[in-house]
Amino acid sequence: MPVPHLTHALNAPTLDLEKRILAAKPTIEHWFRKQWQHHTVPFYCSVDLRNSGFKLAPVDTNLFPGGFNNLNPTFIPLCIQAMMIAVEKICPNAHNVLLIPENHTRNVFYLQNIAMLQSIMQQAGMNIRIGSLLPDLDQPLPVLLPNGDSLLLEPVQREGNRLFTRDFDPCAILLNNDLSGGIPEILQNLEQIIIPPLHAGWATRRKSWHFSAYDNVAQDFADLIGIDPWLINPYFISCGKVDFHEKEGLDCVAAGVNEILHLIREKYAQYGISEKPFVICKADSGTYGMGIMSIKDGAELYKLNRKQRNKMATIKEGLVVKNVLVQEGVHTFESIHQAVAEPVIYMIDRHVVGGFYRVHTGRGIDENLNAPGMHFVPLAFDTTCMQTDPTARPDAAPNRFYTYGVIARLALLASAIELERYLQTPLPVLAEV
Amino acid sequence: MPVPHLTHALNAPTLDLEKRILAAKPTIEHWFRKQWQHHTVPFYCSVDLRNSGFKLAPVDTNLFPGGFNNLNPTFIPLCIQAMMIAVEKICPNAHNVLLIPENHTRNVFYLQNIAMLQSIMQQAGMNIRIGSLLPDLDQPLPVLLPNGDSLLLEPVQREGNRLFTRDFDPCAILLNNDLSGGIPEILQNLEQIIIPPLHAGWATRRKSWHFSAYDNVAQDFADLIGIDPWLINPYFISCGKVDFHEKEGLDCVAAGVNEILHLIREKYAQYGISEKPFVICKADSGTYGMGIMSIKDGAELYKLNRKQRNKMATIKEGLVVKNVLVQEGVHTFESIHQAVAEPVIYMIDRHVVGGFYRVHTGRGIDENLNAPGMHFVPLAFDTTCMQTDPTARPDAAPNRFYTYGVIARLALLASAIELERYLQTPLPVLAEV
Repeated sequence: MPVPHLTHALNAPTLDLEKRILAAKPTIEHWFRKQWQHHTVPFYCSVDLRNSGFKLAPVDTNLFPGGFNNLNPTFIPLCIQAMMIAVEKICPNAHNVLLIPENHTRNVFYLQNIAMLQSIMQQAGMNIRIGSLLPDLDQPLPVLLPNGDSLLLEPVQREGNRLFTRDFDPCAILLNNDLSGGIPEILQNLEQIIIPPLHAGWATRRKSWHFSAYDNVAQDFADLIGIDPWLINPYFISCGKVDFHEKEGLDCVAAGVNEILHLIREKYAQYGISEKPFVICKADSGTYGMGIMSIKDGAELYKLNRKQRNKMATIKEGLVVKNVLVQEGVHTFESIHQAVAEPVIYMIDRHVVGGFYRVHTGRGIDENLNAPGMHFVPLAFDTTCMQTDPTARPDAAPNRFYTYGVIARLALLASAIELERYLQTPLPVLAEV
Repeated sequence: MPVPHLTHALNAPTLDLEKRILAAKPTIEHWFRKQWQHHTVPFYCSVDLRNSGFKLAPVDTNLFPGGFNNLNPTFIPLCIQAMMIAVEKICPNAHNVLLIPENHTRNVFYLQNIAMLQSIMQQAGMNIRIGSLLPDLDQPLPVLLPNGDSLLLEPVQREGNRLFTRDFDPCAILLNNDLSGGIPEILQNLEQIIIPPLHAGWATRRKSWHFSAYDNVAQDFADLIGIDPWLINPYFISCGKVDFHEKEGLDCVAAGVNEILHLIREKYAQYGISEKPFVICKADSGTYGMGIMSIKDGAELYKLNRKQRNKMATIKEGLVVKNVLVQEGVHTFESIHQAVAEPVIYMIDRHVVGGFYRVHTGRGIDENLNAPGMHFVPLAFDTTCMQTDPTARPDAAPNRFYTYGVIARLALLASAIELERYLQTPLPVLAEV
């Protein structure tokens, strides 16, 4: 596989970071083992990373990962083995799981993800059926996928506080639906275990809570291996009561943007970085890719036209954005064939099971791949994220991927803490500047 | 990879066994999950299987596996991931492990196993050094291996109840030494954890104890999936106070041989098997391959010549055989290029991480491979033992390997129970016929 390379000349800080992480492998793995003694790891998780050559950080942590189909088929056994560990914690007395996917019936890429997830769970020894929440589905719907896989979407039924489909009585409900549209009544107050828990969905989850937990994790990790936490942690601030339509609450966002730009400039000066700082404004809840904009000055917020404001005001499922996350932008300086390549790391339980690059081609190598729901070409990692090569450069593929796996696990740990904090304070009062 | 095929025409029983095991995968995996809630799984283990086409059974369970170098390199990540799980249970507050190998310094195949084991543990994030018990070693001995790997054998030192090497203070001692020669004083009463425990070594372990535990496991498993336990379990009987030199105690062995031959004949008649039954007499302790003979009539025992009796009387490290295991022989009907192929399954913690065939070539494909310590050509499995293929025949490679992984895990479970029983009754009184 051609490996994306860093286009940025100034890659000394990340190279130093990679060196330190590689050298501290036993310390790091031991530290993670200790963390998992004290925190409940999410069932599965994917983390989007950005590597600017001088900074390597998570920018999005997905608790309902949707790209298992993009992983390298050679390493699917790692997924199966990790899944065997994950399922030990659920269904101690049964082995039937109902998987509830998103309602994206036309997104074949997403459906291939569901087929792969079903296969991984079957290979791990679970009986797994797919229960669809599609409103008009009244009988099983077989779906043939272009790669030859097939799926059977079955209507979900409820009796009392139990979900089932026809002849299938599951002991657990596995969500691959991020609940952006709220928590459907049919999922509320079930007697079966729901994994991940309902409060991991975007109906309640806040990115600012996640990155607040990540702040602590990044600081602890930085102390552990003796680095500046900024190298792995983007600045952020969150604003509530924002209404892009009515231009309300924008002062908080603009002030946040300028505050963060100021902080970034200080760090860039400290490290001699000449890139132009930018920040990302995005909905504090919801799937990445919607309600998101890149800004280089707080004043830009007051100049948005109607179309731009609309784009920010609503996200997936028509949800109105009220809370905004203002986050330091991390440049993507990994590229392949002139196309930007963004790494995504996949985890099941506490194990990094693989990763791929989202390659954003201006014009797709294969235009078919730029179909709705797939605005990138996936490029699976050709090695695992666990086998380092001490004889190679710190940024050689296996070593770089190990580093990615470490940073992704920091975000995974932050999610564990984030979900624990939510349970301690179930009605979040969002921080306001 | 060319997959060994069954030469035996009468393969219906195993084919039926494979079918049942494949169909019951969720039931089986769930059953194993329950077992591991109640039993402490050994740290690592390898199991030798025999597939006669009408019977598939473990014949040797090794708690100090010596062939990690023979596994398929593609699936070493499975070993690393399983090792990360295994080490969670040891060294909660440190990450230094001292590996104590056999004293076979001239067996490069064994040393390649040690190098691979060290690499797996390093990749899992442990600091691992090799502490040798070689009596004359007074300074570190670097060893270069033909495959390019290198090892450093360091003299083991003891201060009070702690083992260490020079500047290295381990929190755990990992044994890859089966203690055939007894438990060396330097390993006794240590404050560090020893894995596997000392009583897993051949100084105390008895094969009859193992197969007695396996009797129970095989019966439970047979009940679970509705099969005759004989299909996966060889008959056995054990004799104490045997002295081949002095021709003492042979009556017990001969009677056992005839009793087991009688039982086998009944089963062969039941299944319409026309093969000639045989039994294996072997030392009840010690490494497979020494002190072992194949017999087709109890009377043969009284006709052994001096050389044959010597061969049976002493095993590895010159240990005198006093206890003998008489076990139903299971024909090996897997072969490749006219050479007999015997499967060996590898496990770390409760996970099947791979396997290989020992291919016994009358004349080696490469005579160099028939060097001392390597009387077979290893042929690594080309798929894992976890990914079944429902579209292929039950005996297609991935499906057959899954079945092998299941039977091997039954032997692993038997070892767990065997070691627990030993702790309950630490001074074994051997069963006598």
